[in-house]
Amino acid sequence: MPLANEREELRANGKPSTLDRAMVEMRAAVGSDHVLLDSDALARHSCDTIPWQRTCSAVVYPSNRDEVCAIVKIAARHGLPLWTFSKGKNWGYGATMAAQNGAVIVLLERMNRILEVNEDLAYAVIEPGVTYKQLADHLKSRGIKLWADCTDSTPEGSVLGNALDRGLGHTPYGDHFGHLCGLEVVLANGEVIQTGAAAPDSPAWHTFKWGAGPYLEGLFSQSNFGIVTRAGIWLMPEPEAFQAFFCEVEQEENLPAVIDSLRRLALAGAMRGTAHLINEILFMSMLTQYPHELRQGQPCLSDDARRDLRSRHGMSPWSLTSGLYGTAAQVRANRALIRRELKPHGKLTFIDRRELARLEWLTRFVKRTQHLPFVSGLGRLLKNYLIGRAPMEVLELLPNVVGILQGVPSEFVVRFAYFKSRKGRPQSDINPARDGCGLIWFGPVAPLTGSHVNRILDLCRPVFRQHGFDFSASVIVVNPRSAVALMQIFYDKADPAETARARVLYEHLCALTARAGYQQYRTNVANMDRLLEPVPQYRRLLDSMKRAVDPCGLFAPGRYGVGSR
Amino acid sequence: MPLANEREELRANGKPSTLDRAMVEMRAAVGSDHVLLDSDALARHSCDTIPWQRTCSAVVYPSNRDEVCAIVKIAARHGLPLWTFSKGKNWGYGATMAAQNGAVIVLLERMNRILEVNEDLAYAVIEPGVTYKQLADHLKSRGIKLWADCTDSTPEGSVLGNALDRGLGHTPYGDHFGHLCGLEVVLANGEVIQTGAAAPDSPAWHTFKWGAGPYLEGLFSQSNFGIVTRAGIWLMPEPEAFQAFFCEVEQEENLPAVIDSLRRLALAGAMRGTAHLINEILFMSMLTQYPHELRQGQPCLSDDARRDLRSRHGMSPWSLTSGLYGTAAQVRANRALIRRELKPHGKLTFIDRRELARLEWLTRFVKRTQHLPFVSGLGRLLKNYLIGRAPMEVLELLPNVVGILQGVPSEFVVRFAYFKSRKGRPQSDINPARDGCGLIWFGPVAPLTGSHVNRILDLCRPVFRQHGFDFSASVIVVNPRSAVALMQIFYDKADPAETARARVLYEHLCALTARAGYQQYRTNVANMDRLLEPVPQYRRLLDSMKRAVDPCGLFAPGRYGVGSR
Repeated sequence: MPLANEREELRANGKPSTLDRAMVEMRAAVGSDHVLLDSDALARHSCDTIPWQRTCSAVVYPSNRDEVCAIVKIAARHGLPLWTFSKGKNWGYGATMAAQNGAVIVLLERMNRILEVNEDLAYAVIEPGVTYKQLADHLKSRGIKLWADCTDSTPEGSVLGNALDRGLGHTPYGDHFGHLCGLEVVLANGEVIQTGAAAPDSPAWHTFKWGAGPYLEGLFSQSNFGIVTRAGIWLMPEPEAFQAFFCEVEQEENLPAVIDSLRRLALAGAMRGTAHLINEILFMSMLTQYPHELRQGQPCLSDDARRDLRSRHGMSPWSLTSGLYGTAAQVRANRALIRRELKPHGKLTFIDRRELARLEWLTRFVKRTQHLPFVSGLGRLLKNYLIGRAPMEVLELLPNVVGILQGVPSEFVVRFAYFKSRKGRPQSDINPARDGCGLIWFGPVAPLTGSHVNRILDLCRPVFRQHGFDFSASVIVVNPRSAVALMQIFYDKADPAETARARVLYEHLCALTARAGYQQYRTNVANMDRLLEPVPQYRRLLDSMKRAVDPCGLFAPGRYGVGSR
Repeated sequence: MPLANEREELRANGKPSTLDRAMVEMRAAVGSDHVLLDSDALARHSCDTIPWQRTCSAVVYPSNRDEVCAIVKIAARHGLPLWTFSKGKNWGYGATMAAQNGAVIVLLERMNRILEVNEDLAYAVIEPGVTYKQLADHLKSRGIKLWADCTDSTPEGSVLGNALDRGLGHTPYGDHFGHLCGLEVVLANGEVIQTGAAAPDSPAWHTFKWGAGPYLEGLFSQSNFGIVTRAGIWLMPEPEAFQAFFCEVEQEENLPAVIDSLRRLALAGAMRGTAHLINEILFMSMLTQYPHELRQGQPCLSDDARRDLRSRHGMSPWSLTSGLYGTAAQVRANRALIRRELKPHGKLTFIDRRELARLEWLTRFVKRTQHLPFVSGLGRLLKNYLIGRAPMEVLELLPNVVGILQGVPSEFVVRFAYFKSRKGRPQSDINPARDGCGLIWFGPVAPLTGSHVNRILDLCRPVFRQHGFDFSASVIVVNPRSAVALMQIFYDKADPAETARARVLYEHLCALTARAGYQQYRTNVANMDRLLEPVPQYRRLLDSMKRAVDPCGLFAPGRYGVGSR
């Protein structure tokens, strides 16, 4: 961290460092209140749930594009690298941390205007600070019949930031980057461009992705070629009919057949949403805290303990969640296809909005009457009759999940990040980075066949065990031909030994799957440098383009392995 | 044309020119038979249907990637710009012509291997020389239940070349570039990369578009950053049910309402294919030659003459063609939606495979019996009863159109390029560039609303008339939010005055729509330099990247305005 070192040295001599001088200018550019240098603020922006830390040296909050341009020019003059984040809620991938220590963090959360919603053409134009909650509330409060896809993470996450990091959602618009159209980008030379060679106010800028000439928007995702300050995002017209569906895969060995069914359903357009299959550990993490008491002195749960746990919570080894969207007739036609494909492999449940309302009523009834033995007994009987052995936690989770399937964000699900936290999970104001939770994501991409997905799971499962961790995984159908086998390394960050083991496990998983040819769909900031190692020609291409566009390495050097120093 | 000049000068002095020396090496690299320098060959590769000409100085045919790399290195040594085409059938956009005179043309038609077809994951891996016909035949002959989308142009066109130029088809896979996944590219430094940071044999390379790090595939479309030598292309699983549908919009003023209906249908997933609306002039061009006799001394048809012509051919001002794809139940559900939306605006006809077979039988019957007055009278009666006043030419066209809607290429439709050719149209071996036909495409992109599409048409229609041309146009729904208003300037290339007027009309249209903010989705090689004029910052970005990747401007300088000299 040359900057931090220089700063200490110069301070010792009573001279302003490069950083100090730059910050004077930054304050002038964005206002003093919007440049943070105090150690509390720096510490707050130097942590995430991953077991690697990067400290920053300043945090700057521009409020509009011109301020971003000003910041870029100041940083260029002083040779200060900038790491830009929209909201910095990318928990488990780095949050507001850079790949190097000493970076200046630029947070775009003040740039939170919804500039346009075109109801006919079903898109919005937003700034990077716009959150899932803000966009959903905006649409709802104005009676606009459009849905914005969201993740199952915090409602305070940035719609645009997640899309540029190629995050995934739950509706047919779940491929977030794939639904961006028309970006405004600030370049390292301080110039502003509109992608697709679009002139300002070009009417099709947010409706036609490719524009004229080379399509460049991909260059600004998972990378560091520019700072996106505005984007069009396609929204989903509210469908006439919606149903959530769930399939409990009771036999682990049926998983490959389920995957193959999902491919056929997706290719046939019957399943338009991104489907999420989660295993019992991940499911458990959404319901409750880690059951340390069942470890019996071992670092993780035995197969027997997992089986007991499943049976206690009425869970299957794998649970599928997805949605059906369309007109009533479309939903009916597609539901029949889904039934035909999935029925043989597990217990299938469809829930429409009316049934969901009934379940929500029942949940409230059971909760309110639990101190009244007779009435609560009746409620339990009714519940068992209606939805079988699923426990109350599942009933509480359900409306949140079904909401997310309809683009209604909720912070209920992401509480899973507290799974191994000894401090327990809060009811609200979820922030696992702040609260010292331990979680690393690991998501290799598989072709959507049972054999490929199984191969990845079979490769990784024993490695979790070997390092003393419970195998937590989901399989996310991201398009009709691919799935992300998204694994979660839950660890207790308060336990240095377990934290060290989590790091080793992660590195082991990376090496193992890379050897088998599977790439990660997304990676955390501390491990980006290895991404391009296997492809030196490709790296040279990216680095030469990066040098051309950003010769001083001003923007996030090393993000996704591009222009590492 | 510095090269051509140098060559003449040096030849006059009896010395070998740069080109001559390079060609000796090219011959050694790809074989003497695969380097053409004779004037016949050069002339054949220096023409298209557009009224601008560029002469080339050599044509080289590599047979594999290594030969491409060798050619690139030779060209680099001698400073010779290369213009690469897959098959060179891009009629109306330039065919095998470069933006400058004197270029070395590289034709990839010998690289025509279908390297893989994955039936489960529904993709193929192909080389640039693979044609629509070859791919369709390959799938059919092997009983593979997958469809490859095709255009309505020649079956001998390159699948990959069209996709990289962002051409459009007719099925739900009609956005050709959008269905590419995983490119192998030769760079100007002679190195080979795989997009997405994929290592060789990465299993998800052709199933997951984004790869890891920035998504770069767009950089190789409508541009000149590399030579794509192999690509994955997603194919469509053969649907259980298929129906073509047609809507004859009898009142021109209903067009905006039809466009708005199409948007709703596409957004609702009811219409998954690319829909094509064509006006009566374009329709006419598919059926017959230009009716010069109706011009009555004017340069183009009067409104009255158009009306007469419509009535004689049983045509509407606008005719919509699209397809329904899915299971029987999906098609039923979507057909009901289409009926509800379009019925109020025109005459709607659905044709399934059985009905098509019946019509084909009827067509043959009428044709075979036309010399038998009584039987042919019966046939005509039957025809009129079954399909109304549509003439025989429409009946002959129909199976070809319905075939294209199912990915079966046909050269029947593209004969429209001969519309104004005085020599008439051949029955087969269609090649309008060779045959001296006159056609320029002009395709601005509109947001998919009736008012935007109408605005473009209203802007352009009088300009056609003003320059003495019949307004020929189609509206292609390319995604649920955009349409290309694709216009055809048919002109008689044998008539120098009309040819000159065609050029002026084209330039007038470009200027007019650009001023209104509408960009072209694709453009011809002689007019690419103006594309980036309105966006100087964007051009600087592209040019700086181009210089970084291809410092000597080896690859197609100026293609789509990038790296113009």
